[in-house]
Amino acid sequence: MVSVLEELLSAADEAREPLAALSSVTRAEALRRVADTLDAAAGELVPLAHQETNLPKVPRLHAELERTTFQLRLLAETIVEGGHLEVVIDSPDTYWPAGGRPDLRRMMVPVGPVAVFGASNFPFAFSVAGGDTAAALAAGCPVVVKANPGHPLLSDRVAALVSSALSSTGVPRGAFGLVHGIEEGRALVTDSRIKAGAFTGSLAGGRALFDLACARPDPIPFYAEMGSVNPVFVTAPAVVERSEAIAEGYVASFTLGGGQFCTKPGLVFVPEAEAETFESFVAAALAGRVAEPLLNTDIEARYAAALGELRKHPAVRVLVAGDGVAPTLLGCDAADFLASRAELRTECFGPVSMVVRYSTEAELVACARSFTGELAASVHGSLPDRTVERLVALLSDRVGRVLWNGWPTGVSVTYAMQHGGPYPATTSAGHTSVGTTSLRRFLRPVVYQNMPQALLPEELRDGNPLGVPRRMDGVYRPTA
Amino acid sequence: MVSVLEELLSAADEAREPLAALSSVTRAEALRRVADTLDAAAGELVPLAHQETNLPKVPRLHAELERTTFQLRLLAETIVEGGHLEVVIDSPDTYWPAGGRPDLRRMMVPVGPVAVFGASNFPFAFSVAGGDTAAALAAGCPVVVKANPGHPLLSDRVAALVSSALSSTGVPRGAFGLVHGIEEGRALVTDSRIKAGAFTGSLAGGRALFDLACARPDPIPFYAEMGSVNPVFVTAPAVVERSEAIAEGYVASFTLGGGQFCTKPGLVFVPEAEAETFESFVAAALAGRVAEPLLNTDIEARYAAALGELRKHPAVRVLVAGDGVAPTLLGCDAADFLASRAELRTECFGPVSMVVRYSTEAELVACARSFTGELAASVHGSLPDRTVERLVALLSDRVGRVLWNGWPTGVSVTYAMQHGGPYPATTSAGHTSVGTTSLRRFLRPVVYQNMPQALLPEELRDGNPLGVPRRMDGVYRPTA
Repeated sequence: MVSVLEELLSAADEAREPLAALSSVTRAEALRRVADTLDAAAGELVPLAHQETNLPKVPRLHAELERTTFQLRLLAETIVEGGHLEVVIDSPDTYWPAGGRPDLRRMMVPVGPVAVFGASNFPFAFSVAGGDTAAALAAGCPVVVKANPGHPLLSDRVAALVSSALSSTGVPRGAFGLVHGIEEGRALVTDSRIKAGAFTGSLAGGRALFDLACARPDPIPFYAEMGSVNPVFVTAPAVVERSEAIAEGYVASFTLGGGQFCTKPGLVFVPEAEAETFESFVAAALAGRVAEPLLNTDIEARYAAALGELRKHPAVRVLVAGDGVAPTLLGCDAADFLASRAELRTECFGPVSMVVRYSTEAELVACARSFTGELAASVHGSLPDRTVERLVALLSDRVGRVLWNGWPTGVSVTYAMQHGGPYPATTSAGHTSVGTTSLRRFLRPVVYQNMPQALLPEELRDGNPLGVPRRMDGVYRPTA
Repeated sequence: MVSVLEELLSAADEAREPLAALSSVTRAEALRRVADTLDAAAGELVPLAHQETNLPKVPRLHAELERTTFQLRLLAETIVEGGHLEVVIDSPDTYWPAGGRPDLRRMMVPVGPVAVFGASNFPFAFSVAGGDTAAALAAGCPVVVKANPGHPLLSDRVAALVSSALSSTGVPRGAFGLVHGIEEGRALVTDSRIKAGAFTGSLAGGRALFDLACARPDPIPFYAEMGSVNPVFVTAPAVVERSEAIAEGYVASFTLGGGQFCTKPGLVFVPEAEAETFESFVAAALAGRVAEPLLNTDIEARYAAALGELRKHPAVRVLVAGDGVAPTLLGCDAADFLASRAELRTECFGPVSMVVRYSTEAELVACARSFTGELAASVHGSLPDRTVERLVALLSDRVGRVLWNGWPTGVSVTYAMQHGGPYPATTSAGHTSVGTTSLRRFLRPVVYQNMPQALLPEELRDGNPLGVPRRMDGVYRPTA
């Protein structure tokens, strides 16, 4: 008997060539059809998601579904425009230095079947039909999703809708599939037919799958987004000027969605002299907050355990002790933070954050320097300020997104968005899992040398019949 | 006592920020200064290279040095133009779907210090001041080179010239260094200050270093180019039409540089009915060839051993038995090739290649399909021909470069060049080690959210003061 996984893998492998051969316009149509189908099923999907995740239907789950279908449509638009193909064409040139130049035409092509591991905290946007699936399909790669165990029924239902939408647009049957189970996930990432992996979840889970992907006889790229503490640096002028507003923004951001966002600000650095005032504003803002249920009992148990560890740490003060899943505020001193970085820079998935008091600007800079890889970092400051310049430069060398006077939660799906960062935020700092450049993960370059027009993909032919942006002999020509 | 390696690593780490902060114009000037310095030293460097590698001074080593300095100058031009920064700017838009859009400005930034492992067969172009070093420095990353043991004196001399040229242009001292030794190489790739690795060499060597890079507590990308057999597919119409010319091109390509190129055509597939004629043309072309000495006795011994294994294989015929390092021609049947792929698809570094006889077009297609990752593949055909269309499509899904009626040796340094391919050709199919897009390996994206103009890098400021190509709200604007 052939297993479900084996059937999906063999179908994905068979779909590889026909899917890659479909035109961008057809693939875009398929993505739009998936989006329309999911939108039309909102009345069914949102209650199902709520039932399995405890997340509120309005505005959260409705908004998340909208984000998911918008993402599919934006990627559809992107592949029709064609900039993601990174077309570069060199005309033949006998006098080109170092031995001459043949006719060379380069473009990006799909890598092949992709394994996608859905996240618990975004049952739509980072799950079965989420960003990774959308990007892989848009790139022309078949997808096998490993369902997150937190929302199995929703996963099945979304998968059925995606499959039917795709097949109605002529996409080969094997282009999309779904499996459940930890063992199946491991088998997926180690199967030779899978050519790339994408994951959103915990550091432990992401690293384990990354290790499997690298250890294959034929290693594959494994793009794991594994969370972050997203530090926030508040300068003295800023907190003197607007302590209460910063405290309110902070509370809104770290308690958003029950603190179950990978962009939650887990640490905020404030000057010692202003810390007491700031902490009391934070406590006041927290006082009005209602506890939100976490995604499931498993995550609740893990939150309680991680929080317990933090609270026990000798350097940690408990400023506001939330009961159960009610928001908790911790505190510590920068010197202790620097001395105990490994334990105190831990993502604690749930409604907790820590205020770190620094005594000098040098200490603030040392704290910023101590981070090695975060999804986002924020600076709250006032200009002009040399310290702020130093902080922004340091942080841009360490994180994927640097914010000014803002909060890291809320990752817009756009052309410029970067949702990634050096390890341990992700396993691949060179890429993003949100935004239109997320396609790059599932593409690789091919160059054709002296190839006749008839054998070239249309995107590379003379006259640019598809009107894609191209670099010609070193010069960008958006649509020439 | 601090080791040489530790000194270099700590200096590279210190140089990281100042090097990244240099303007592209200053970095370009430094690359050009390195090129000028090396060109000026040709009279000293070429004889030294010849002494250590046996490669002929004229035209080979002089041409290779020219290629090396051209590469430095082309990358200098590339970074000033700025397309490699992949700038994308989104203006704020409250009505953008899924929650609005802040001001987002994305660009590529250097990853940090890079470990470069020099190759034996290109003592200039893929060694101390070769493509990987040039790309990493151009990207703004400090470089620590691990010298290839095949040319230690040349490595030291080139390193001294590079260091002095860089320091004369204000590049921080630690931006470039050189170490020798296998243990030093391992220590380099596992040191937390190194953020990426690049390698050109054997499958065994590249894989071992890749494994170390992946197993770090903080894994890093390791871009290994590990050679290839670069299959050539000759259709019946082509060989009927021009058997002798194809045979002559084949011999010239596989014996070039003593067969010591990673792009050497190791396998050529010809139709059975024409094989005898073709093989006799090949033998005739080989008859006039003089044996070239290999790089060193180590490589000669490895060549003898690998060739001995191939010759012993029951499926292999010896068509022309070259004495010692004189060119050797082997043959086999496609059915045997498909049955013994693992042993017969082995890169054999030296002047040997194998003619594989196929009996049907279906068998030819099956052979093409059997490859999983090659740097290059070539098709010799005549149009129109459906088989050729099929071959080109299949190969573009499996290799980095597809050639028409040409030979894979000779990799021009251009904007469009792709020198890479799926495993086992490289450990990272998404990238190239030759051409201007080779920079991409040493860059990662960062996005600035709602950042004031004064805190943004110049490339991202309003009005585009540096005139770099930018994508604005989804639309390419080459220099607006």
